Amino acid sequence: MTRPTPISGFPEFLPAEQLVFDRVLATIRATYERYGFTSIETPAVERRDTLVARGGDDKEIYTLSRLTTGSGSTETELALHFDLSVPLARYVAQHADGLVFPFQRAQIQKVWRGERPQAGRFREFYQADLDVVGRGRLGLTYDALLPAVISDTLSAIGVGPFCIRLNHRQLLQGWATGAGLPAALVPAALRVLDKLEKIGIDAVRTQLTSTCGLNPARVTTFLELATASRPGTQVLDDLAAGALPLNAALEQGIQELQDVTATMQALGVPDTHYRLDLSVARGLGYYTGTVYETGLQAFPTLGSICSGGRYENLAEAFGPERFPGVGMSIGVSRFVPALMAAGVLAPAAATCAPVLVTTLRQTLRAETFRLGAELRQAGINTEMYLESDRLGQQLRYAARKGFVLVAIVGEDELAAGVVRVRHLATGTEQVWPRDTWTADVRRWLAEPA
Amino acid sequence: MTRPTPISGFPEFLPAEQLVFDRVLATIRATYERYGFTSIETPAVERRDTLVARGGDDKEIYTLSRLTTGSGSTETELALHFDLSVPLARYVAQHADGLVFPFQRAQIQKVWRGERPQAGRFREFYQADLDVVGRGRLGLTYDALLPAVISDTLSAIGVGPFCIRLNHRQLLQGWATGAGLPAALVPAALRVLDKLEKIGIDAVRTQLTSTCGLNPARVTTFLELATASRPGTQVLDDLAAGALPLNAALEQGIQELQDVTATMQALGVPDTHYRLDLSVARGLGYYTGTVYETGLQAFPTLGSICSGGRYENLAEAFGPERFPGVGMSIGVSRFVPALMAAGVLAPAAATCAPVLVTTLRQTLRAETFRLGAELRQAGINTEMYLESDRLGQQLRYAARKGFVLVAIVGEDELAAGVVRVRHLATGTEQVWPRDTWTADVRRWLAEPA
Repeated sequence: MTRPTPISGFPEFLPAEQLVFDRVLATIRATYERYGFTSIETPAVERRDTLVARGGDDKEIYTLSRLTTGSGSTETELALHFDLSVPLARYVAQHADGLVFPFQRAQIQKVWRGERPQAGRFREFYQADLDVVGRGRLGLTYDALLPAVISDTLSAIGVGPFCIRLNHRQLLQGWATGAGLPAALVPAALRVLDKLEKIGIDAVRTQLTSTCGLNPARVTTFLELATASRPGTQVLDDLAAGALPLNAALEQGIQELQDVTATMQALGVPDTHYRLDLSVARGLGYYTGTVYETGLQAFPTLGSICSGGRYENLAEAFGPERFPGVGMSIGVSRFVPALMAAGVLAPAAATCAPVLVTTLRQTLRAETFRLGAELRQAGINTEMYLESDRLGQQLRYAARKGFVLVAIVGEDELAAGVVRVRHLATGTEQVWPRDTWTADVRRWLAEPA
Repeated sequence: MTRPTPISGFPEFLPAEQLVFDRVLATIRATYERYGFTSIETPAVERRDTLVARGGDDKEIYTLSRLTTGSGSTETELALHFDLSVPLARYVAQHADGLVFPFQRAQIQKVWRGERPQAGRFREFYQADLDVVGRGRLGLTYDALLPAVISDTLSAIGVGPFCIRLNHRQLLQGWATGAGLPAALVPAALRVLDKLEKIGIDAVRTQLTSTCGLNPARVTTFLELATASRPGTQVLDDLAAGALPLNAALEQGIQELQDVTATMQALGVPDTHYRLDLSVARGLGYYTGTVYETGLQAFPTLGSICSGGRYENLAEAFGPERFPGVGMSIGVSRFVPALMAAGVLAPAAATCAPVLVTTLRQTLRAETFRLGAELRQAGINTEMYLESDRLGQQLRYAARKGFVLVAIVGEDELAAGVVRVRHLATGTEQVWPRDTWTADVRRWLAEPA
């Protein structure tokens, strides 16, 4: 008989906060769908081998077992997915012949990682993934479509000022090999670069020159370009003008980024919503072309809330067929609690219904039912208070829960064929005839608060 | 390098089926919200002790562990929830002071049970729960509200003819004790009754008389009442007229069911959507009053797709405070695949967008972007085909994916300021001026197929 306590790393919300979180999820989904990205959902589990093979961290993967193992149990092979990319790869490989390519897919689900819980990091959290996967090939235009959709989505949520930072793995590869690094050591150098925000420019410079053995002058020039606060695509102009000695990989990266950003402009992405950033490396070996990270200007400590990139072959673990693609993922659980706490996404009511219909007395209950039905019929979410309590208690309930309007019918109103409606925030009351009152309610609800 | 195979008991859908499933979930949620039932979401996990204490079957509970245990790991205590009732109980006990009672909550989530997979039974499945929980008390009107909401919800989904069957635990209790059974043995008798559909009336009669020791004549009368195909509330009339010898519990059950069904009628529930059924026992000891099961007339082998009941105290495992409530839960994963297979809920397109905008040539891409933006602006989900393929291939893609309309702009259309739109199913084409075409598209989409 103990009062339950929260489980660390597994967040849950009170109803008012949950409504905000769910509205964010619904906005993401609706915006993804507006561009034709159709949702799939995969099981919470994958085979353990699938997850481990795709770079899952053993210490973070939750495996399943049963308290008492029955006969024929196979769950020892199963584990909770830690992202939605591995499930997508498995899904595409498994169902390739049932899918139509280019496959534009959205996927908004919980994922689980046994990380040490810390601020903004959870063990259970939501990701909202967006990918376009081709069969054998996928054009570069999709590398511009994805940040365009993300720009629309973040604007629709109302996250405040944000910036999608773009870079290109070939560009980084070309620079690093041009600065004297053998190709095999490039991933290690990129992992160093990836820590720029965390460890600072001096530590990165030291590691790149002494540990990785990169040409110190080239490292300095590169880090100047990477950390200069230049808007839009100006860094590309510098590069094209020879700020770094060119080679094939570097030129490919520059050219593709020029193409991608020109297409983003044609797609109408406001130029305040993105810029080139040579320090974006994306630790994962997985990416081969364009890479993305996204920061909220007012919440720099949150880190990237939407990352992704172009990959050469999604499903290489599952067969010889090549499925190139490009994807981005919004880390919903990463930023929504912070934006709620800051009032940017403020919880309001603890109910999804703006109207409460009260019951003045048991004999008027049928009238309560009729009023409720009329509002629901008019498309207005409506709760009916069905306990036999005094009106004062019903109004206190309405205020605590955050209803906007309360409908009251007593014997006088019933006899006169009217409904009394009270606006809780202002205390104003209106009395409307029964045959038009739902339109009046809708009008009052539409008025600015 | 092996092609992945499905994991038994963990279903997943292709996009066209997923769209049907998601539409069902969205309809359930919207209808619950129409009555003011506000969604909460709890983590996928609860503490193991919480689940076991609340009647979880050891063999069915999935516990979590990590592949490699890090320091400070506490996951050995965690397990996946097997329903949404235990999480609700824990949530109410944990957050009672942050909630407003009566607490009208919806909860639509996956749950996991390590059952042996069989037709219609999965190890991972969706439940859509609806509960009203009081603090200290909860009026009987809510016992009628819940089946009213469920009736609306199932109608809105379009499941075909269904019937919510009501019974009352006190009525069963009163009958069983009246037929000579000590109160302590009543649960065992109800578990026998619960198997009526599975083992048949003769086996139930035998077990109730010889094993449980119930009065044979009373068993016969009861089973006649329980299996008679009487519409609506007629069984209640028989009981009130003395078909079984009355006692306090029996009378309480009859009276509450009379009240509940009268309220359901006042709430406008069509009388074809519910009836009394004395054979509904609900195996769980948990329920103390009204109980519900729901069958689809055209799919009798599915069993109950929506069950629930009144409970005396939701959170008794967590403290002395009493939280009575009433709940029902739709087993979404139980019936949607069967209804899809039968064509009652038929998958159509593999895309959430009705319109595809094609790209005739690279130089016209900016025009493709503009057309897409105009449709999206008009609130129409629109995919843009962004590969440089011939029109024929783009049309085959559109047909395979199930788009309704395809927008085509070549140089002629661009020069003339028009858009050519093809209706894929009929092959008809329309040419519309650019300044009004989105309204034309909307009109064409609204026409019956």
